[in-house]
Amino acid sequence: MKITIAQINPIIGDLPANAEKILEVAKQAADGKVNLLLTPELSLCGYPPRDLLLNPGFVEAMGITLQQLAKDLPANLAVLVGTVELNSKAHLNGGKALYNSIALLRYGKVKQVFHKRLLPTYDVFDEHRYFEPGLQANYFTLNDVKIGVTICEDLWNDEEFFGKRSYSINPISDLSNLGVNLVVNLSASPYTQGKQSFRETMLKHSAVRFDKPIIYVNQVGGNDDLIFDGRSFALNRRGELTCRACGFDTDLLQLEFDGKKQDLIVSSIAADYECEDEEIWQALVLGVRDYLRKCRFSKVVLGLSGGIDSSIVAAIATAALGKENVLGVLMPSPYSSESSIKDANDLAVNLGIKTTKLPIGELMKSYDNTFSELFANTEFGLAEENIQSRIRGNLLMALSNKFGYLLLSTGNKSEMAVGYCTLYGDMNGGLAVISDVPKTRVYSLCHWLNRNREIIPQNVLTKAPSAELKPNQTDQDSLPDYEILDDVLQRLINEHQSAAQIITAGYDAATVIRIIQMVARAEFKRRQAPPGIKITDRAFGTGWRMPIASNWLAVKNVY
Amino acid sequence: MKITIAQINPIIGDLPANAEKILEVAKQAADGKVNLLLTPELSLCGYPPRDLLLNPGFVEAMGITLQQLAKDLPANLAVLVGTVELNSKAHLNGGKALYNSIALLRYGKVKQVFHKRLLPTYDVFDEHRYFEPGLQANYFTLNDVKIGVTICEDLWNDEEFFGKRSYSINPISDLSNLGVNLVVNLSASPYTQGKQSFRETMLKHSAVRFDKPIIYVNQVGGNDDLIFDGRSFALNRRGELTCRACGFDTDLLQLEFDGKKQDLIVSSIAADYECEDEEIWQALVLGVRDYLRKCRFSKVVLGLSGGIDSSIVAAIATAALGKENVLGVLMPSPYSSESSIKDANDLAVNLGIKTTKLPIGELMKSYDNTFSELFANTEFGLAEENIQSRIRGNLLMALSNKFGYLLLSTGNKSEMAVGYCTLYGDMNGGLAVISDVPKTRVYSLCHWLNRNREIIPQNVLTKAPSAELKPNQTDQDSLPDYEILDDVLQRLINEHQSAAQIITAGYDAATVIRIIQMVARAEFKRRQAPPGIKITDRAFGTGWRMPIASNWLAVKNVY
Repeated sequence: MKITIAQINPIIGDLPANAEKILEVAKQAADGKVNLLLTPELSLCGYPPRDLLLNPGFVEAMGITLQQLAKDLPANLAVLVGTVELNSKAHLNGGKALYNSIALLRYGKVKQVFHKRLLPTYDVFDEHRYFEPGLQANYFTLNDVKIGVTICEDLWNDEEFFGKRSYSINPISDLSNLGVNLVVNLSASPYTQGKQSFRETMLKHSAVRFDKPIIYVNQVGGNDDLIFDGRSFALNRRGELTCRACGFDTDLLQLEFDGKKQDLIVSSIAADYECEDEEIWQALVLGVRDYLRKCRFSKVVLGLSGGIDSSIVAAIATAALGKENVLGVLMPSPYSSESSIKDANDLAVNLGIKTTKLPIGELMKSYDNTFSELFANTEFGLAEENIQSRIRGNLLMALSNKFGYLLLSTGNKSEMAVGYCTLYGDMNGGLAVISDVPKTRVYSLCHWLNRNREIIPQNVLTKAPSAELKPNQTDQDSLPDYEILDDVLQRLINEHQSAAQIITAGYDAATVIRIIQMVARAEFKRRQAPPGIKITDRAFGTGWRMPIASNWLAVKNVY
Repeated sequence: MKITIAQINPIIGDLPANAEKILEVAKQAADGKVNLLLTPELSLCGYPPRDLLLNPGFVEAMGITLQQLAKDLPANLAVLVGTVELNSKAHLNGGKALYNSIALLRYGKVKQVFHKRLLPTYDVFDEHRYFEPGLQANYFTLNDVKIGVTICEDLWNDEEFFGKRSYSINPISDLSNLGVNLVVNLSASPYTQGKQSFRETMLKHSAVRFDKPIIYVNQVGGNDDLIFDGRSFALNRRGELTCRACGFDTDLLQLEFDGKKQDLIVSSIAADYECEDEEIWQALVLGVRDYLRKCRFSKVVLGLSGGIDSSIVAAIATAALGKENVLGVLMPSPYSSESSIKDANDLAVNLGIKTTKLPIGELMKSYDNTFSELFANTEFGLAEENIQSRIRGNLLMALSNKFGYLLLSTGNKSEMAVGYCTLYGDMNGGLAVISDVPKTRVYSLCHWLNRNREIIPQNVLTKAPSAELKPNQTDQDSLPDYEILDDVLQRLINEHQSAAQIITAGYDAATVIRIIQMVARAEFKRRQAPPGIKITDRAFGTGWRMPIASNWLAVKNVY
């Protein structure tokens, strides 16, 4: 039996375009005598559709689109399409209005519908907000092969592998009891660092444990903060990788299920990435490219300070959109060093992007004049520093509004964590490209990027980081060393460690408490930040839901 | 049996302060020979604690605080305290790590713990993210009275009242079968327009249906976007109101349960509000007051344009904080009319607040100079309009940073819906006071406010609304009449109607489609908006989770 994985990149909510994509791929598959075509979770509407699902008109349109797609598809091809189905008994029995579903389309009809059983409701996932869990094991038979159908999270509860349960049931165990010959998993699993290797190890465990071949299908593409990395793959009954699609791009992957061996046959296996930096780079590039495309923009503008953050973001944007679509803006102030301007220009030359220069000295004087009475007899401080940052933010947004560039913001995760950034200033932008990339990782990405030739100028990598909002300022006037800061933040944010635990790990108590306080106090800034591309297992944004008007610091000795 | 409802206002996450509040009230109750003290849902940490619950150190601290509180309380008094309990079997059986719980404290100990059974996961609620539902009916016995314990949502599934089920079980039905004499409901139920009357009608139905007296305890206070209105109340077995606490403030309400009649006796009933405007006004005032207090600010600054939005926000802030704590800033441009300046000054006089004036003409010229080359041969447009708004935003934030004022933003819901507002300009602020108040309601609030004497100047109420960002501009150059816009938005946002349905209701098709498009396209602005005080059943903010990079307009004929 010939099977094709359609690793597609849907646009959220664009039902006609997504149906058309599936149709195109199906025609190719039919031409190649394929028997079964697999598409990702919710492939018809894209994942995650979020509150579009609360709109009855949207759900109705999805049903109509699905019926039409069934009619349009090559009759003989079996196609699994991700969609939603109404929970018709919700009013009688209680429960959510929808099922997260996979429809089996064949011979012009919706032949069967399968419901997702395990509904992730943590981090960025809100599936209990919309969906009722399915109660039955899902399978169908095609060419005498009994195929078990699971949807994403359904395979993420192997209690032997995890050493604990996250849900009371393990759907593949039910499918195994029903004697299926093959298990498919239709997913929309967002990228985080190192996740692919985790997925392959986890599913290998299930394949071996239940002696079943597993086909894992993943969505690809950037949807706001979430990057879906694709890398669909399959494992035979011994848990050996038989194929793998490419990462961070659409792909069509051909598989063959051998009816005699009851197993998958080895086909093409895309290579692993050479290092984490390369993988993260690919994620960020796709994130920028898709956000622009799906928001119907083609060009970006960003401020170039000569610092490392704006340098890497300019490099990412250039890789994503082409050098002709990136405009760098130099906005020197009297506090900007000569070397900053040179570094920014060197970067632009290395990337081949256009730049323009808008000095802000005159504007700073105008603000000084405006405040001459009100600020008389006060000292230069945060207010004056922020004015500069907000002048730059205003200039960049004016360019965005005038010429239709999307503004990229360039703050890194370390800054966003402790609030070392100006709301309505350098935080401005439609997309925060590296807001989940810690400063130390920014350096590592730049070194990786420079592996063949200099792209990020050497001086950018070696000079002390500075916001240049007052004379001789450096980041480390206000912050601990980034090596320390980033490790403490990793423990605090990603690993949920308490202050006591972090201090026990060898950090200075006062430093740890200060970092925790800075993180808590910066919540109001993060709430108003642009969406940022998620690359770690805990990013600020949709998966970070902290109160602002709170006082958890009152129990700081426990944190 | 004497019972006291402690309608308290906790600070999110401030365990020591919240425990202290409960202790104070308990001492008063013990002095009054009260037998049972009731506090709201999660009274120890405040509701909603959100992702603080993902921090094991926080959960541990809550447990320690609860044990200590049990020891500190008057021994003889039974106290119900809202807290969380670990789900010790989560690893074995699957399930979330915590239970949303009520602890019965007495004689220095935690005597019993009750688990919430129905977990709201819709709109602003994310309880499935943190909690496992309780499986058992909850009750305890005190002075021979069998008291059923329910937590908030547990009583919001009366299928007879709603005509449908939202959950498979109805906890009060189980309690009735167990023969309880009295049902208490410990809640944290956020305010929305008209909700109190809905609560009383709904619980009256359950009281009568099950022939049980019901005591409803609600939290009070503003926590970010959510306003808890208090108005705790009780109903006797015939569903008659026997008492009601005040709205939008802390209160202690005394009740008496007559053991012979097996019913509650009538005590004090706080009056209803005279109209919806008064109720909304109270919500907004409390929202501002608590956001400031809980963020440890005392003073606010806001721009006064002479328009109706900034006028009502200034009035709300004055009522919340006192006139000495409100600074109004006039920032006239060459496009500002004389009457706008007069209107703003008249308002300030009526409110007794200070003002300062910072004309922006010189700053506008500086930006013009900066862009003289780049913008040469382009027409005055959105970019130039937004520059003005962002100059004002920068000035206001500089005052905020310099003097420690919190900046209030003044945009209304109609503007936020269609994006008639400037990101990083007039949207700037720590709190968006009226971002859930439609423009037509802003007018109605002002008329109500002026019922005794002029507070909002007459001219503000009668002139055509204008952003004054170019000569002779009015809102209706860009937007449909507000009466039309607000009704279409209500249908679209709050009632989930499709375009077809709204058009059928009598609206012009092109207008409806245009409004829907504007709402979709403004998503990127709303994502970066400050938290806004929720007063309707569907506000932008934590309960509105829309994708940005999407294309739902592709199926606009269905919407």
